[in-house]
Amino acid sequence: MKYKQGMLIVVSGFSGVGKGTVIQLLIDSMPNLQFSISCTTRAPRVGEENGVNYFFLSEEEFEKKIAAGEFVEYTKTFTNYYGTLKSEIDAPLAHGVDVLLELNVVGARNIKELYPDCITVFIAPPSLDVLKARLIGRGTETQESIERRIKEIEIESKEIRNYDYCVTNNVARSCADKIVNIIRSEHLKVSRQNMTNIFNSEA
Amino acid sequence: MKYKQGMLIVVSGFSGVGKGTVIQLLIDSMPNLQFSISCTTRAPRVGEENGVNYFFLSEEEFEKKIAAGEFVEYTKTFTNYYGTLKSEIDAPLAHGVDVLLELNVVGARNIKELYPDCITVFIAPPSLDVLKARLIGRGTETQESIERRIKEIEIESKEIRNYDYCVTNNVARSCADKIVNIIRSEHLKVSRQNMTNIFNSEA
Repeated sequence: MKYKQGMLIVVSGFSGVGKGTVIQLLIDSMPNLQFSISCTTRAPRVGEENGVNYFFLSEEEFEKKIAAGEFVEYTKTFTNYYGTLKSEIDAPLAHGVDVLLELNVVGARNIKELYPDCITVFIAPPSLDVLKARLIGRGTETQESIERRIKEIEIESKEIRNYDYCVTNNVARSCADKIVNIIRSEHLKVSRQNMTNIFNSEA
Repeated sequence: MKYKQGMLIVVSGFSGVGKGTVIQLLIDSMPNLQFSISCTTRAPRVGEENGVNYFFLSEEEFEKKIAAGEFVEYTKTFTNYYGTLKSEIDAPLAHGVDVLLELNVVGARNIKELYPDCITVFIAPPSLDVLKARLIGRGTETQESIERRIKEIEIESKEIRNYDYCVTNNVARSCADKIVNIIRSEHLKVSRQNMTNIFNSEA
């Protein structure tokens, strides 16, 4: 049996924009959408689980996978590796499952080059002021860390123009619903449909 | 005041597919969507009103408008003229209103060339057999007329690949909802948004 190819969806957003909640709502709303788990060498944060949020690897394990060609793309930040496993994308797509990736702007750009048919969605805050208020409201960030994040945001914001869609996160449920609609609408594109099925009957 | 530019949506579909009902539901669902009334020289059918379904013109009136350059596009069939007035498109678009055009495959192709940012949606029947059953079920068509329509359908169906979206009309309400989602999602495209509004506050 030949499966219909699934669709690859890349979601990015500034730190503090509330991506996690939106993505969870998305996954819960769409039975045919699967979250692709990334690999990282950073330590798990409180509440994060191996094989759920990330595959948490040692630097040695990560580099072994690089050598084995297991990553579609990976990036190294100042302190850590982040990577997307081929096995987490290609197998589900081939079975007609839609795959959701959460990536930073660099990872998103890499994936768009490799999978030009993927759709990229940037989750934006209602305004920079709202985002700053959210970062400060967390109470877990120092003034210095907040200022560093604001700088990152200014750099990342220049990349938004390269995304297919930009959705503002005022309310997580409504933001998730908009992305659900984007995914459903993209499936209605002629370029993604097998048009012969309408005309398989003899006229 | 500078308005946000509206979006142009072109809807086509085979004769008998139920376009009229879907379009009425669409217009009723979207306050910012306006139906653009076409001009024709054909006689009004029962229930059709001048200035509602079409502007019904004499051949002389139609040709005067051609000479005056009032049409964005027009086509002449064996018996009649059909045309789209500039005034029905450009003014509402400039005021941020979305405009819906119902056009045949030739008109849709003309408009897509002139307005490359427009979105084109083809409304398809669940299958050709269903469409044939609908045409016969009307009871208003002769066997010869039905066969002619089926031939037209076969010719038109080759054009579907040039549309942006194809939506199957199983149930008019659900088909209209899908097109509503398409229009809303298209408005979330980065290429259609003014991205500066997110970052107008000082960081």
